[in-house]
Amino acid sequence: MRKVTFDISMSLDGYITGPDNSSEHPLGENGEMLHQWLYRLASWRKRHGISSGKINKVNKDAKVVEESFKSTGAVIMGRRMYDHGVKYWGDNPPFHVPVFVLTHERKEKIVKEGATSFTFVTDGIKSALLQAKAAAGNKNVAIAGGADTARQFMKAGLLDEMQIHFVPILLGGGIRLFDRLDSGPITLKRNRVIESTGVTHIRFRVSK
Amino acid sequence: MRKVTFDISMSLDGYITGPDNSSEHPLGENGEMLHQWLYRLASWRKRHGISSGKINKVNKDAKVVEESFKSTGAVIMGRRMYDHGVKYWGDNPPFHVPVFVLTHERKEKIVKEGATSFTFVTDGIKSALLQAKAAAGNKNVAIAGGADTARQFMKAGLLDEMQIHFVPILLGGGIRLFDRLDSGPITLKRNRVIESTGVTHIRFRVSK
Repeated sequence: MRKVTFDISMSLDGYITGPDNSSEHPLGENGEMLHQWLYRLASWRKRHGISSGKINKVNKDAKVVEESFKSTGAVIMGRRMYDHGVKYWGDNPPFHVPVFVLTHERKEKIVKEGATSFTFVTDGIKSALLQAKAAAGNKNVAIAGGADTARQFMKAGLLDEMQIHFVPILLGGGIRLFDRLDSGPITLKRNRVIESTGVTHIRFRVSK
Repeated sequence: MRKVTFDISMSLDGYITGPDNSSEHPLGENGEMLHQWLYRLASWRKRHGISSGKINKVNKDAKVVEESFKSTGAVIMGRRMYDHGVKYWGDNPPFHVPVFVLTHERKEKIVKEGATSFTFVTDGIKSALLQAKAAAGNKNVAIAGGADTARQFMKAGLLDEMQIHFVPILLGGGIRLFDRLDSGPITLKRNRVIESTGVTHIRFRVSK
């Protein structure tokens, strides 16, 4: 079944960036500690064009990431994530599917190498989702972030599944994934737990 | 090995109470949703003197709770937790071990039925820990709460192990377990994950 998904690395104290994050340093202080498990994966490095460095053997983390990558047919992201990321992604961005960027500014579609394209959507999340679903075929639509974008989809009841990669660190500050929810209790249904070395990947069905 | 432990139920958004908690309603709005998994356990109900109601069969949750109970030789708690709890615990409180209450007010030791006693400690957490360790023999000392008390032990480097019972709900407000840490990143070592129905019990070694 085609789903709308969101994958995110979160510290034990609920942060998805470190303290003092800015548009120049979106991960904040020590925020890269949240993603060490990812940086070490051979598959991730290959997709990001990094051929050197110490890599992990194929492990449970790699399987989780490959599963998400293979099941994703289109991506939605917020404008700030795009603006920051585009400086690093180069001519062959790591998505390899159509990407829909939520923005207020009209802009022509950009087609990159390796099947990645960026379409700028100015008429809201529902329109972005319709376009992304059409592009995804029978695969999933992944919300790439940031936290605000993911929260918008969750609040609108448009998010089906969320997978949190729990990293056993306390960052002590930064941006919290679950903040300003402004709503009563929401019950999720945990539908999978995968323990890898350190990181615990917990997947939830978001009830509507 | 004798350890200082802390067990706590936490929502996915990091809360250990619901919104609008007060001394009269320490769990806040919907905060009892964090503990439903516990209330259903036959062993928990028995220890709290509740003989009626719907109970779960012995499950993984029950094993986790029994393990904590059996390995605990003494308990430390904050004054607010004591003040609220004592109204409900009756003549035979559910601890069945010596309890040390952190307070600023001198008070005589209270001895209850079922091996529970309350000793009031006015000279700080280290003194409470020394007394609790002496009382616990070769068993663990459990920090019962509240969050402030647990944070004090963690900050002082006196907490060895923390087990978080992750409940898949978003409460949207309340008291956060990890708040005002005022410290750089702290790396924990996850040493066990138990999935039960809904709740994920993750145990961490707190590095010093």
